Amino acid sequence: MKVFKYPERTAWSEILKRPVMDFDEIVDRVVPIMESVRTRGDEAVKEFAQKFDQVVLDEFLVSESEIEDAIANTDEELKKAIQVAHQNIKTFHEAQFEPVKLVETMAGVECWRKSVGIEKVGLYIPGGTAPLFSTVLMLGVPAILADCKEVILCTPSNKEGKINPAILYTANLIGLKKIYKVGGAQAVAAMTYGTSSITKVDKIFGPGNQYVTAAKQLAMKAGVAIDMPAGPSEVAVWADETAHPSFIAADLLSQAEHGVDSQVILVTTSEELIAKVSDEVTSQLEQLPRKEIAAKALENSHIILLKDEKEALDLINEYAAEHLILSLDNAEDVAEQIINAGSVFIGHYTPESAGDYASGTNHTLPTYGYAKSYSGVSLDSFVRKITFQKISKEGLKVLGPNVEIMAKHEELDAHKNAVTVRLQTLKD
Amino acid sequence: MKVFKYPERTAWSEILKRPVMDFDEIVDRVVPIMESVRTRGDEAVKEFAQKFDQVVLDEFLVSESEIEDAIANTDEELKKAIQVAHQNIKTFHEAQFEPVKLVETMAGVECWRKSVGIEKVGLYIPGGTAPLFSTVLMLGVPAILADCKEVILCTPSNKEGKINPAILYTANLIGLKKIYKVGGAQAVAAMTYGTSSITKVDKIFGPGNQYVTAAKQLAMKAGVAIDMPAGPSEVAVWADETAHPSFIAADLLSQAEHGVDSQVILVTTSEELIAKVSDEVTSQLEQLPRKEIAAKALENSHIILLKDEKEALDLINEYAAEHLILSLDNAEDVAEQIINAGSVFIGHYTPESAGDYASGTNHTLPTYGYAKSYSGVSLDSFVRKITFQKISKEGLKVLGPNVEIMAKHEELDAHKNAVTVRLQTLKD
Repeated sequence: MKVFKYPERTAWSEILKRPVMDFDEIVDRVVPIMESVRTRGDEAVKEFAQKFDQVVLDEFLVSESEIEDAIANTDEELKKAIQVAHQNIKTFHEAQFEPVKLVETMAGVECWRKSVGIEKVGLYIPGGTAPLFSTVLMLGVPAILADCKEVILCTPSNKEGKINPAILYTANLIGLKKIYKVGGAQAVAAMTYGTSSITKVDKIFGPGNQYVTAAKQLAMKAGVAIDMPAGPSEVAVWADETAHPSFIAADLLSQAEHGVDSQVILVTTSEELIAKVSDEVTSQLEQLPRKEIAAKALENSHIILLKDEKEALDLINEYAAEHLILSLDNAEDVAEQIINAGSVFIGHYTPESAGDYASGTNHTLPTYGYAKSYSGVSLDSFVRKITFQKISKEGLKVLGPNVEIMAKHEELDAHKNAVTVRLQTLKD
Repeated sequence: MKVFKYPERTAWSEILKRPVMDFDEIVDRVVPIMESVRTRGDEAVKEFAQKFDQVVLDEFLVSESEIEDAIANTDEELKKAIQVAHQNIKTFHEAQFEPVKLVETMAGVECWRKSVGIEKVGLYIPGGTAPLFSTVLMLGVPAILADCKEVILCTPSNKEGKINPAILYTANLIGLKKIYKVGGAQAVAAMTYGTSSITKVDKIFGPGNQYVTAAKQLAMKAGVAIDMPAGPSEVAVWADETAHPSFIAADLLSQAEHGVDSQVILVTTSEELIAKVSDEVTSQLEQLPRKEIAAKALENSHIILLKDEKEALDLINEYAAEHLILSLDNAEDVAEQIINAGSVFIGHYTPESAGDYASGTNHTLPTYGYAKSYSGVSLDSFVRKITFQKISKEGLKVLGPNVEIMAKHEELDAHKNAVTVRLQTLKD
């Protein structure tokens, strides 16, 4: 990790700059995949599965017997942990329900909004060596709570056509019925355009590699919404002299192990802390199975020493971290002043990994600085808030003349007339 | 308007298809504008203002004396109407505040989320003959309520460098301080990259022509969020035999006058209504100043006769109209079953124009079918909902082992270790 001691404010933006992402070339390679699936449907999906994943499939839909096998083959201890996480995530997201609140803006003018689940949503869960059952929880639980009519899940199988049992166990636990063995850009294409076996959806959620990310960009161009723009995962830890160097090192490494493009940042006003944390990082790193990935990520990572809390707060808000850990004595007070972050972890005993898995908050969060303008996934991501209004005759008599005047001044006479024809029938 | 009588369900998607929008060519023309503003800032903005709007400007920021003049030169009757609309819009959007709600998912595991205003937002208000002061209200009021630290407004001036007084009056009324005389793609470019005089923002809101729309697409690619994808405005009216043909005709025309690409749809189960509405449309159209635009829009518009309420409901939900007017005897019951729409207007005395201007709901809504996945602009559009969590030592003892197990099974040992190092210090 590169150490910056007391950098000038003018140098911050350069230090905090994220690595450039350029998807244009990948997008060009994904366009024909999208196009093939659009025109040839399932047949094209099968061809791409064979070509990219070396798997030959007759049927994408996971069968009931496969689910039963998965339930039998999932570690019991893991099942219990997933159940705890499920309960917490459900509890936290349930509290996000917005009740309908009728607002009478004027006598006889009633307005309200109602959250209605998006009819059809698609969840994508990447394959690879490790099964991301935690992401099944993070996307599936709010989708089910939002009462989306159709929730489908696509995830690639291995070469034998099998999906990791923990993924199937989790999907089944939370009530997902339609799980398809389809991965990569072709999965996103299938959910964007629909095929004989896979439904066209209104919104696509979930992480993935560069091809999946590029396919989601193209899906958006084709009119399907996506959860949020993608970028490498990141954590900022702001620590003071009360912090435990071993905790901080573990937090930094937990982000660094995600991928070689992950970024981790330590911000502190305590110069002594730097050497202690660095030593801990070095010794903990040695123990990690994914140490090569983590070591690579640490090369893009920074330790920034600042002169006081005000500077640290400003820099942290400027960075807008996906995950922000406040390992500070006054962490709660500081948390009140955070204006740009995806999710904030307060105090010495709140590791990021708690929120990644099981505390209840969502782990699908805006990274790459997008926390300045986007929220993480929540129940809101799975609903539309439709506005309604009902105006009585008396209400229109009072409100209507204002509408007529405003419409006249915007030179939209037909808008005015829609009120006028009604008011004419109400004249005494 | 083309009349479809009892079309088969299989024919619906063809009937309801929106006109194709292809921005690729426009985007290609806007790329160099974005690039010039990015590299040459204000100088480039001035050149484009001169080239496209034939106006030479030394200073973009509207001065206090210009605001004072605008206040003096705005019609008094209009001021009162704008004040009424302002109050209603404020009341409706204030009710959208989400209080912080602490959720203790397990003993010692406290999670909550807090709405925090986006730090810097940019509002775009198009120029042209008619001044869209209503859109200043619809975007400005929630931006101010959300407590965004910096809210800037860009709108083009006329050739004499003047902005319509009603726009300035409205902006000043609601508390917008920074109004810039900049329009078109160059305004979006300036807000995307920042110039010496115009702040780089985190999110851009507002309608505009094809160039503005294309520029917003490019802004998004450059990492700035936008309010929602754009498309031509539209209304669907669902009417039964209790509806007043003159009201329906006026509602259809109020949408049709927006632009030649607007789409209006009448859905009914009453065959008699069709001729009555058509006659009314013909006679009302003659009286309109914008009759040529409206007549053109009506060419893309449909009257659809269906056999029963169930069919009508299904078709209406399939169409997902930006504006949906329910001119039905049982409008309130039907409204409960609407799952896809931007905003719903209930009953015979609730014209769309009430919501366009003054009832309190927002008029910036998802069109072009986007109502299936997007909500209209609301207070939510101007905040991020940041999640927070605070775990006590006791809380981590209970939650932590679950995180360790899940992390182990996802093969993310450093994630596990961030819990383990903490739990080790808590062993009795």
